[in-house]
Amino acid sequence: MTRIELYDTTLRDGAQTWGITFSLDDKIRIAQKLDEMGIDLIEGGYPGSNPKDRKFFKAAKDIPFKHSRIVAFGSTCRSDLTPEKDSQVASLIETGTEYVTIVGKSWDLHVREILAIPLEKNLSMIEDTIAFLLPHFSRVIFDAEHFFDGFKRNKEYAIQTLRAAEEKGATVLVLCDTNGGCLPSEISSIITETKKHVSAAIGIHSHNDSETAVANTLAAVQAGAVHVQGTINGIGERCGNANLISIIPALAVKMQLLDFPPEKLRLLKHVSEFVDEMANRTPLKSQPYVGASAFAHKGGLHTSAVMKSTIAYEHIDPTLVGNNRIFPMSEQAGRAALVQKAAQYGIPLKPEDPRVNEILKTIKDLEARGAHYEVADGSFELLMKRMLGLHKKFFTLHGFHVSNMKRQGDTKTYSDAVVRIVVGDKMEFSAAEGNGPVNALDLAFRKALQLFYPCVTEVMLTDFKVRVLEGTSGTGATVRVLIESTDGDQVWWTAGFSQNVIQASWDALVDSIDYKLQKDLANRGS
Amino acid sequence: MTRIELYDTTLRDGAQTWGITFSLDDKIRIAQKLDEMGIDLIEGGYPGSNPKDRKFFKAAKDIPFKHSRIVAFGSTCRSDLTPEKDSQVASLIETGTEYVTIVGKSWDLHVREILAIPLEKNLSMIEDTIAFLLPHFSRVIFDAEHFFDGFKRNKEYAIQTLRAAEEKGATVLVLCDTNGGCLPSEISSIITETKKHVSAAIGIHSHNDSETAVANTLAAVQAGAVHVQGTINGIGERCGNANLISIIPALAVKMQLLDFPPEKLRLLKHVSEFVDEMANRTPLKSQPYVGASAFAHKGGLHTSAVMKSTIAYEHIDPTLVGNNRIFPMSEQAGRAALVQKAAQYGIPLKPEDPRVNEILKTIKDLEARGAHYEVADGSFELLMKRMLGLHKKFFTLHGFHVSNMKRQGDTKTYSDAVVRIVVGDKMEFSAAEGNGPVNALDLAFRKALQLFYPCVTEVMLTDFKVRVLEGTSGTGATVRVLIESTDGDQVWWTAGFSQNVIQASWDALVDSIDYKLQKDLANRGS
Repeated sequence: MTRIELYDTTLRDGAQTWGITFSLDDKIRIAQKLDEMGIDLIEGGYPGSNPKDRKFFKAAKDIPFKHSRIVAFGSTCRSDLTPEKDSQVASLIETGTEYVTIVGKSWDLHVREILAIPLEKNLSMIEDTIAFLLPHFSRVIFDAEHFFDGFKRNKEYAIQTLRAAEEKGATVLVLCDTNGGCLPSEISSIITETKKHVSAAIGIHSHNDSETAVANTLAAVQAGAVHVQGTINGIGERCGNANLISIIPALAVKMQLLDFPPEKLRLLKHVSEFVDEMANRTPLKSQPYVGASAFAHKGGLHTSAVMKSTIAYEHIDPTLVGNNRIFPMSEQAGRAALVQKAAQYGIPLKPEDPRVNEILKTIKDLEARGAHYEVADGSFELLMKRMLGLHKKFFTLHGFHVSNMKRQGDTKTYSDAVVRIVVGDKMEFSAAEGNGPVNALDLAFRKALQLFYPCVTEVMLTDFKVRVLEGTSGTGATVRVLIESTDGDQVWWTAGFSQNVIQASWDALVDSIDYKLQKDLANRGS
Repeated sequence: MTRIELYDTTLRDGAQTWGITFSLDDKIRIAQKLDEMGIDLIEGGYPGSNPKDRKFFKAAKDIPFKHSRIVAFGSTCRSDLTPEKDSQVASLIETGTEYVTIVGKSWDLHVREILAIPLEKNLSMIEDTIAFLLPHFSRVIFDAEHFFDGFKRNKEYAIQTLRAAEEKGATVLVLCDTNGGCLPSEISSIITETKKHVSAAIGIHSHNDSETAVANTLAAVQAGAVHVQGTINGIGERCGNANLISIIPALAVKMQLLDFPPEKLRLLKHVSEFVDEMANRTPLKSQPYVGASAFAHKGGLHTSAVMKSTIAYEHIDPTLVGNNRIFPMSEQAGRAALVQKAAQYGIPLKPEDPRVNEILKTIKDLEARGAHYEVADGSFELLMKRMLGLHKKFFTLHGFHVSNMKRQGDTKTYSDAVVRIVVGDKMEFSAAEGNGPVNALDLAFRKALQLFYPCVTEVMLTDFKVRVLEGTSGTGATVRVLIESTDGDQVWWTAGFSQNVIQASWDALVDSIDYKLQKDLANRGS
């Protein structure tokens, strides 16, 4: 097996993502995580461009990386300076890294129109910069910027830039699809042709502008590339870089071209979520391999089938990448899914139990009226428990009143709520003001309930979504409110459906709290 | 140029996406949009699985589609029934569509372990179902489920299923990578081999579980597939389906294998956003071709370079797909965009006008607080007119009060609103009851205003959407309310932003009506 080298640029190219800023501390934590997962090379930053990256390299020196090597990134020297006089180049030496990556232009159009210098001058900049850096590093990697676009228009010159780098000592020539416009078939044929002209190792750096970055990378490896650049979750400028989270299992499991230890592969989902956390991004449910819905089976037909033979419905075993198989409920959910769901809730239920059909019918009826339990697992569990007589009634609602007022000359809108509940033989009235009607209801409801059940104070509402279900009926439309809650120990979703947004919100709120009460009851084992 | 046929399954496979439910009305509007863009075939749903899809086909009959043909989707008959006795199959005929797609198993493992029937029985189910349906449709398309996985394990049998379909009259054999596990190179070689054994047209249906669905589709076309299935934005079960939004420009612009009219191609971004709106999904900034950041140039180096030569930094011209080049950091670009917008509204404004910077600053401030005028063109136009002194004040709001009440034993939630407005020197109080607080406000507001301006009765609110803005959470989150209105002559969108959903709704409502008044004023030429 040819040794494929994994090169992560989350901390440099990934940090270019619109809306993402990594602090110095974020960068260090991500580097440690990448090391833990067994990434070979970590591009730490561009010391010539900003002080944060210079600090990163300083800090990285004190970190005992187990597997990864840190790489500094820079570009060829300015056309009007020698490398030793160019502070951007000099800053690379100061990083003290073992490896360095130098990006240089390989598309003649860029040399002529952007740099506005003779083509030969660009070649000597590549040569001089690499020659100058070589004594300071144990390896120089050359990133050939816009290589594929250059090759398509002036193959001769593009190859010349690689040969210039190779002759001066670069041992990896990374072919960059900088604009992300290439398709896999082009990557394949261009690499095959390029390999005839150079002998150093070939690397691939691709962007996702054509939605083919992963495929481009795999095509490059099949054509002989042995060094793969990418970022975690494919973050990066514009449409992002090639996603290592999808490339690694393809190379290791599907193509068997990468020897990646199983225990490291199982970290994939964790590392993906960790980087999203650092980037303050909501993980994409649909992300291949590691997303929450990547192994979610929907549709009655499929669900029963998956239970019989997982290989029949899963492209790889989800546990290999640290993920799990799940069966959300849906319009088309079948009996098997329902039984499986019940088992997850600790409810023993047999497919032939007549109540299974009853529950399915109820779901179908509710869904036909706009309800939607696929995401609202918490409400669904409550619904099932109620239908099976397994639900304990902790409180009764005797009504609520919410008032929203706006007066001329006052920028604020006032929202007040009054809630009346009964617990046992005690009635409790409570009132609260909120920054909106739902917030006011939420506060008033909990204020009343916590007198009886202190555990409700542990519940935090972490997300609130409103969706109109019928497009044509304007403000009289049916809305679905989805609420995400957590008590620190578990996360659950509840839903409410009504033409009245207040009623829908109220139902979702009540389910959220009820879910917590049922859950704590179950945990007490009673 | 071989004619490549585009087959959209947003309404069937796309509707399987976790968290997405399309109402009947959503489905109809999406179908109309797909027709407008020139999609050849629209898979409308699975009538045998749910009543909503049956209703869709019924409704679709009355819609005069210009280009698209509607296709009904179903599966081969049950093993214990003949097709004529199988209601799922019979429901296909009831749809009255011209074309039908039948999915059948082509992986022996599925036949043996999931269906648990002899391999021959599955072949006869394919044959019988197609033979039964053929007289009722002008075309039968066969979806060979799990074809690639089947081919890898039992090539002979996988091919037999295609031949069974072909012999009975299926004219397109769609090879499905149902589990999404294939890589482009496998797709290529399997199609090349398969084509030796069948003569009907080959189609491709791929899923994105390996993050290569677009590349798999393109590889299939290069290997000879002439029918391409996918969804808008790649929505679909698990990791989604192949994304038509990325496939279309690749085939049309890059590979020049698809003859897609430029004016339809320019609808790409609009259709992408439209489907996201219907699905209540936040458009992905990084989405290839159409995302907000797809042509966003970051970094001083690149921005100046892009200005010199756009081809040097863009894989395609963004305007081809209805997108725009943006420079998030550039004040200059913002100015040009603003002047262009003003011109659209018929407001002459010069880039050097000092008010341009004022307006940009206000927008920046509002956007920093969560506002977002990209979709709400109506509110944006009002904002500009107000700042430029081109807005006529038709009414003043003196306040509102909305009350929502729920009483024990009563299933209804009561919503009443009182609104006070001043027009000239007259004050008008009015009250209304609605089926929700926003509906009540809407009714009360118009009741008051129509006494002075009868034209407000022409305004119909056709859509109402609420979204919690990114980065805020819980019931205290900032929400954006978007309202779509029409007076039969024009459609406009207005927005409101607030932590209070009632306030946000009110602002969007008021803008909607104000927009109408300003519009009628302009049309009177005063």
